[in-house]
Amino acid sequence: MGYGYNGKILHVNLTTGSIDVEEPTDVFYRTYVGGSALGLYYVLKNVPKGADPLGPDNVLVLSVSVLTGVPVHGLSRSVATARSPLTGLIGDAQAGGFWPAELKFSGFDAIVLKGQSPRPVYLWINNGRAELRDASHLWGLENLETMQQIRSELGDEKIEVTGIGPAGENLVRFASIVSMANRAHGRTGMGAVMGSKRLKAIAVRGDKRPAIADQEAVRRITRWGVDHLGDVDGLAKYGTANIVGSQDAAGGLPTRNFTSGTFEGYETLEGEYMAETILKERDTCYACGVKCKRVVEVKDRVRPEYGGPEYETIATLGSYCGIADLAAVSEGNQICNALGMDTISAGATIAWAMECYEKGLLTASDVDGLDLRFGNADAMLAALRAIGRRQGNLGRLLAEGSARAAAKIGGKATDLLITVKGQEMPAHMPQVKRSLALIYAVNPFGADHMSSEHDPNYNPDAEETKRRRLAYLGLLNPQPDRVLNAEKVRFTYYTELFYSFLDSACMCQFDWGPAWTLYGPEEANELVRAVTGWNVSMFELMKVGERRLNMMRAFNAREGAGRAHDRLPKRLFEPLKGGASDGVACDHGETERAIDMYYQMAGWDNNGTPTRGKLAELGLDWIPG
Amino acid sequence: MGYGYNGKILHVNLTTGSIDVEEPTDVFYRTYVGGSALGLYYVLKNVPKGADPLGPDNVLVLSVSVLTGVPVHGLSRSVATARSPLTGLIGDAQAGGFWPAELKFSGFDAIVLKGQSPRPVYLWINNGRAELRDASHLWGLENLETMQQIRSELGDEKIEVTGIGPAGENLVRFASIVSMANRAHGRTGMGAVMGSKRLKAIAVRGDKRPAIADQEAVRRITRWGVDHLGDVDGLAKYGTANIVGSQDAAGGLPTRNFTSGTFEGYETLEGEYMAETILKERDTCYACGVKCKRVVEVKDRVRPEYGGPEYETIATLGSYCGIADLAAVSEGNQICNALGMDTISAGATIAWAMECYEKGLLTASDVDGLDLRFGNADAMLAALRAIGRRQGNLGRLLAEGSARAAAKIGGKATDLLITVKGQEMPAHMPQVKRSLALIYAVNPFGADHMSSEHDPNYNPDAEETKRRRLAYLGLLNPQPDRVLNAEKVRFTYYTELFYSFLDSACMCQFDWGPAWTLYGPEEANELVRAVTGWNVSMFELMKVGERRLNMMRAFNAREGAGRAHDRLPKRLFEPLKGGASDGVACDHGETERAIDMYYQMAGWDNNGTPTRGKLAELGLDWIPG
Repeated sequence: MGYGYNGKILHVNLTTGSIDVEEPTDVFYRTYVGGSALGLYYVLKNVPKGADPLGPDNVLVLSVSVLTGVPVHGLSRSVATARSPLTGLIGDAQAGGFWPAELKFSGFDAIVLKGQSPRPVYLWINNGRAELRDASHLWGLENLETMQQIRSELGDEKIEVTGIGPAGENLVRFASIVSMANRAHGRTGMGAVMGSKRLKAIAVRGDKRPAIADQEAVRRITRWGVDHLGDVDGLAKYGTANIVGSQDAAGGLPTRNFTSGTFEGYETLEGEYMAETILKERDTCYACGVKCKRVVEVKDRVRPEYGGPEYETIATLGSYCGIADLAAVSEGNQICNALGMDTISAGATIAWAMECYEKGLLTASDVDGLDLRFGNADAMLAALRAIGRRQGNLGRLLAEGSARAAAKIGGKATDLLITVKGQEMPAHMPQVKRSLALIYAVNPFGADHMSSEHDPNYNPDAEETKRRRLAYLGLLNPQPDRVLNAEKVRFTYYTELFYSFLDSACMCQFDWGPAWTLYGPEEANELVRAVTGWNVSMFELMKVGERRLNMMRAFNAREGAGRAHDRLPKRLFEPLKGGASDGVACDHGETERAIDMYYQMAGWDNNGTPTRGKLAELGLDWIPG
Repeated sequence: MGYGYNGKILHVNLTTGSIDVEEPTDVFYRTYVGGSALGLYYVLKNVPKGADPLGPDNVLVLSVSVLTGVPVHGLSRSVATARSPLTGLIGDAQAGGFWPAELKFSGFDAIVLKGQSPRPVYLWINNGRAELRDASHLWGLENLETMQQIRSELGDEKIEVTGIGPAGENLVRFASIVSMANRAHGRTGMGAVMGSKRLKAIAVRGDKRPAIADQEAVRRITRWGVDHLGDVDGLAKYGTANIVGSQDAAGGLPTRNFTSGTFEGYETLEGEYMAETILKERDTCYACGVKCKRVVEVKDRVRPEYGGPEYETIATLGSYCGIADLAAVSEGNQICNALGMDTISAGATIAWAMECYEKGLLTASDVDGLDLRFGNADAMLAALRAIGRRQGNLGRLLAEGSARAAAKIGGKATDLLITVKGQEMPAHMPQVKRSLALIYAVNPFGADHMSSEHDPNYNPDAEETKRRRLAYLGLLNPQPDRVLNAEKVRFTYYTELFYSFLDSACMCQFDWGPAWTLYGPEEANELVRAVTGWNVSMFELMKVGERRLNMMRAFNAREGAGRAHDRLPKRLFEPLKGGASDGVACDHGETERAIDMYYQMAGWDNNGTPTRGKLAELGLDWIPG
């Protein structure tokens, strides 16, 4: 009579050192699936209202899903969830690699971390057994060294380690949690939460392979993926940097703190240029054939162990800062991975500081004498090092993120911010991709580009595969225009629900998406059925996504967030300069109307808060009103 | 690039006699699918606000779906849609038989009937050609004679005819539209709308078989159904009357105008008793192997051509009126089918009149001297004949339906009503099946038992098949208790969406349901894919259901309906007497809280009106605000 999934959750109290294992019901697993929704469950249940994000009352959950560890492309992802020290609202960060699969092999679907350790520790999970170990000797180490040291002292090179670098230890508000020295839970400062708990790392190892209900179906899906890798060869060949040129051509490459959508130096930031110059090899996550991950090397400067820059990193450390030097961008990427910082927030914060400096809003003393102008790569690198270690006036100021920094220096600096809910904006421009104006505004953990499909793919001329995939999500009427009308709000909302499901099922958005990826939503539904044996429908899976979204909104509402927090920064309504988007700006009335409409589509009140009935519909009436 | 469905809509203006053919886009078909949603589209587009339901401005649509005519069990259903003369709000009535399939074979998915003919006419559709023909010689005929006469004069015994009897001509507010003399679009008075247009009948014939995208898959689904007919053999053996005994045992057999849920005479109303006494044979609809339809014969009294009484008819003409005589109930069924009246409203209206008479609220003159007491079968039959022809004081009074009759006689008569939105309640009791308290209140076309799943099937001990089917709709947590809590509101809402899809896809609810039927929602999804070639998901199909529901609510809101119309009658809150439900009553607070919760789940405002954002989400922003 059951749904046939058995899993374990590890509960670790860092204050007391106690470790417990929970075995939730199969209904629980089918309801929350894993990843973000599962993490939110424990955060909502355990974090008291008003808890200090960097205090012992915050709870950090690292979770995978009922699918993780199954050898199919794009299934090795983990999620970090906690109250965010950057936004003060819900935090959420997703990462790939091998750690997620290895956590599953070690016997657990999630680790719920409570309290605060009196001294640095790391957590060692080995085939169902878990222990906290002293990490005093690791404190202060960069991410690569931490991983090497733990593998060495535990005597197993196959141990996977995720952890924090000096930025997390120093409570940089956009610190990341990094595994393999190059896979980051980057956004919303989850590394600072881990640092506040004095948990340096989590090492995992095991041989518990996940149960698969229908082996043959899973093999068929894997083989189909192998046969269709050619459909995503742009991503394979050039990584996410593949889109630099097209972004620039569309006027959507954020340049000099979002004042322009075109960058004269874009050609030396392109994926093709990377492949011709510094690319050493292509890397992959567990069992994935797409191999989108870059490995670059710059002699005496950038080590291959730190991977290579993604598009977001290239744009935020590059064009966002007016920098066309790919080696410098790669070194910046290395610094961020070594120290454990989100490249997006780091780059965007520096870009903001550059504009402030050029406009005289930051003095020479504020920036420790750096020539912090757009285009100065050395200044960008120096700023990154200072932030990660909270060194100097500049490091201490920017380690708080641009929104807090602006509040501190006051004056016009706030007008230059490119943030929502205090989180810096990724490198896709709402002025050009109008659906992003909506999702950046309303996304519960701040501006995010991985929470819905961007509109350029929503195109009447889209190829048959894309058209069929969008239709599977009930999106029959292509709407390519640069306008945020009802159809595009619906497009944004429906694809948001699907992405929200992916982030709970821990399915990589580069393999499983609603349009241009290797697999589409139809195969995603098929895969969940094959792995779990559950007879899930797309209706149920979309409700999982909706459940996760509503849990985030309910958390935020509890912390006092509402419509006032769903606001785009002033700059987005000022015309862009140059290129294909010259003169283009977001429209304030259009955006406000879209937000109203979106709230109504979501079944929320006009403050953007889920109604009690909506929560009840999603089985979330246990969340206090 | 298209979705590959080509179909035609026939537009008939009865005022002018003009006939036009429309060929909607494939996106239109994929959006509305057919049946109720498609009919609502034309009603919302064409009926002006405030139009008299019995005037020329009302529009009556008879529609089938993209599936109709495909030879699979339970796919020959049609829907009648118009503003209802009974409720003043949206009207909706579903029927089976052979007419729906034959309409499809004639070349059309729907007939949109506007205006008002100056003289009686009938519509003859023959293989894509349509003409209006004089029906003066048919006016006044009963349904069986009309069918025979039309077949005879057109010279083809295979013509299928649907039409109205004297009740529709006389604008009885619960008049039906009947085909085969025994398949009725019973509810909400669609026959009166047809009568007001002076359209006696619609005759159809054709050989245009529907396109099937995947013949092999459709054959497989049909064969699977044949192999599993044994799973629904109760329905096959005893028809819907199969449940009389279990309803009585549960205290849910409405007795003497809903004052009790148990009837001492139930044994002579049971399906088994029918099979042993008056059952002549089992009948079926086009291509359906379930054969739930009864054919009964009572020498010199009940002719087999009029079929046999369904459970609803047995309960409303039987226990509702305190009558245990199955032959009389069968004769009453024959009268209703011959004259063209809804058996539910007819029986419930007479039951109400019986209580009024017993309590002295109706005088001997009001009832034309009939001894209109509970249990008097002859009085029930006399009343039916009088109503259908609007004869005498009683016939004229009750032809208006019980709600208008109560308003006319005034006093305590209103307290005895068993109506919502002016429509009489079917024979399932909300006191016992608590989910019905919600759906009876909120259903847009008045109290209805075919608009959501009833809670007894929602049971933790349900067999594996039922459990899997409910899980496919996202319903994982069984809730069998007699309480209208959040889980049951969700159950009601989700199954309502699914039924709403079925009523648009014109899939029979006795073959395709979320629990106890031959097929479940998983096979329903598979079938739509196989027939149409559309890669539809359950998400999309549930949205079709939601679309139809919101169209109905939007129509009602336009006509001034709101929360005040979503009210259960007083009697439901008074304790029942006797049997298993002795002392049981609906709870007012529980019901009101459930309605609030339901509105929020549906994304409506607190007046029960769809928000503009919800309409936009469903692609319905063309409906004026």
